[in-house]
Amino acid sequence: MDNRPIGVFDSGVGGLTVLKEIKKLLPNENYIYIGDTASFPYGSKSKETIIELSKKRIENLIKMNTKIIVIACGTATSQALEEMQKIFNIPIIGIIKPTVEYLKNKNIKNVGVIATTGTIRSKGWQNQIEQSIDNIKIQSKACPLLAPMAEEGWTKNEIAKLAIHEYLKNMKNIDALILGCTHYPLFESVIKEELEEHIEIINTGKMVAKQVKEYIVENNMTNEKNQEHDTQIFLTDMECNFVNIAKKLLNEDNLELQKID
Amino acid sequence: MDNRPIGVFDSGVGGLTVLKEIKKLLPNENYIYIGDTASFPYGSKSKETIIELSKKRIENLIKMNTKIIVIACGTATSQALEEMQKIFNIPIIGIIKPTVEYLKNKNIKNVGVIATTGTIRSKGWQNQIEQSIDNIKIQSKACPLLAPMAEEGWTKNEIAKLAIHEYLKNMKNIDALILGCTHYPLFESVIKEELEEHIEIINTGKMVAKQVKEYIVENNMTNEKNQEHDTQIFLTDMECNFVNIAKKLLNEDNLELQKID
Repeated sequence: MDNRPIGVFDSGVGGLTVLKEIKKLLPNENYIYIGDTASFPYGSKSKETIIELSKKRIENLIKMNTKIIVIACGTATSQALEEMQKIFNIPIIGIIKPTVEYLKNKNIKNVGVIATTGTIRSKGWQNQIEQSIDNIKIQSKACPLLAPMAEEGWTKNEIAKLAIHEYLKNMKNIDALILGCTHYPLFESVIKEELEEHIEIINTGKMVAKQVKEYIVENNMTNEKNQEHDTQIFLTDMECNFVNIAKKLLNEDNLELQKID
Repeated sequence: MDNRPIGVFDSGVGGLTVLKEIKKLLPNENYIYIGDTASFPYGSKSKETIIELSKKRIENLIKMNTKIIVIACGTATSQALEEMQKIFNIPIIGIIKPTVEYLKNKNIKNVGVIATTGTIRSKGWQNQIEQSIDNIKIQSKACPLLAPMAEEGWTKNEIAKLAIHEYLKNMKNIDALILGCTHYPLFESVIKEELEEHIEIINTGKMVAKQVKEYIVENNMTNEKNQEHDTQIFLTDMECNFVNIAKKLLNEDNLELQKID
């Protein structure tokens, strides 16, 4: 039994799509979420900047006595996870590996990946998929406008539809599409309309949630049942839009946001 | 005579629209431009974050021996200019005051302002205009997606048109529209199509350039004629798109970008 919180961080609201899935599987846990809104977006930044930012956020979460850390950000996972696992002595889970295991188990052979510029440029998804699965075909597309559009709340309007169309129009003959940035599940309904019906849309948050649960159950690290538990949200910059999107996503009316440096 | 460079900074490529106008009026000067791409976009950040970032960039420019500094960014001008002028002992020019003087001289009485969320929220434009001009009516609109779209190069496509339409559709009965973010002149042709013909589009870079010229001429700070002169560009994060947009905007093929911390 371990009543310390689970730590989750992202550059903005996107990681909340992951937090939501983890909370579904582990409703009895304490959570600390950091949205690094002062540095949003991570997607267009260089590897060294992402490593520096990720280090700061993980140091914040370790000081707050978390038991496991989830990098709920495609860019930070692809650019910094390996480095962070070398530096820190705490279990750290990113969004790529759990999804690659899912692809392998389902024997998917033609997959599309959409993500931020930084993630696509780093080949984080491509390399890990190709290392784990033989003869898989991958089509990648950087979609740098989608995360800012999600932060603006434009996830279902005509502009979202056109942008999604623009980004997906050349993606042919895939069986599944990985939403390689944690903001993208916010566009799920529009993406569904754009794609042929048989194409599976992969929300990485669901895969991460399963892996987090397995890890803390196997290692006897779950919170005691019937203990009080809560979710604390910290932002590096107190933005207005965050709280509205967060309330809708997490379906909680009384979210309190705190500032962290 | 003063051969030290003129310093210009912005969060990204936007400030190049200002640099371009200054170079037109003062082609014989040396220039140092800093694009704070590691922290882009400024527009959605809090006042305290903007002050901190502006301070760092001005410290960089002072170390590089600049003679005058232009904050070529609407957000940083509205949120941090006053504070910076208190801290630093070097002439610092922002994009708001020169434009307000222009409005006053032209006796414009109904004006629209589009800018980033941070700029609009700070009322930087509104307060300065109302303090200087009696009975002027101002309509403001935050357009948080435009700067990221400009960084992506989407300034003339259908998505740009729809976003511009969405942002401008409720702006009625204006005589002039201030492009209150230095990225926005990149959308000038689309904005022109969206607006009635008689509405003047105000590119703040032109107003700033005039004021910089006046200041350095009056204070005998111009570079010696026929001296060698150049433009150095520094980025806090080496992004790919920057160089393409910069080459087009400045019409220079051999731009060299350097990294700065």
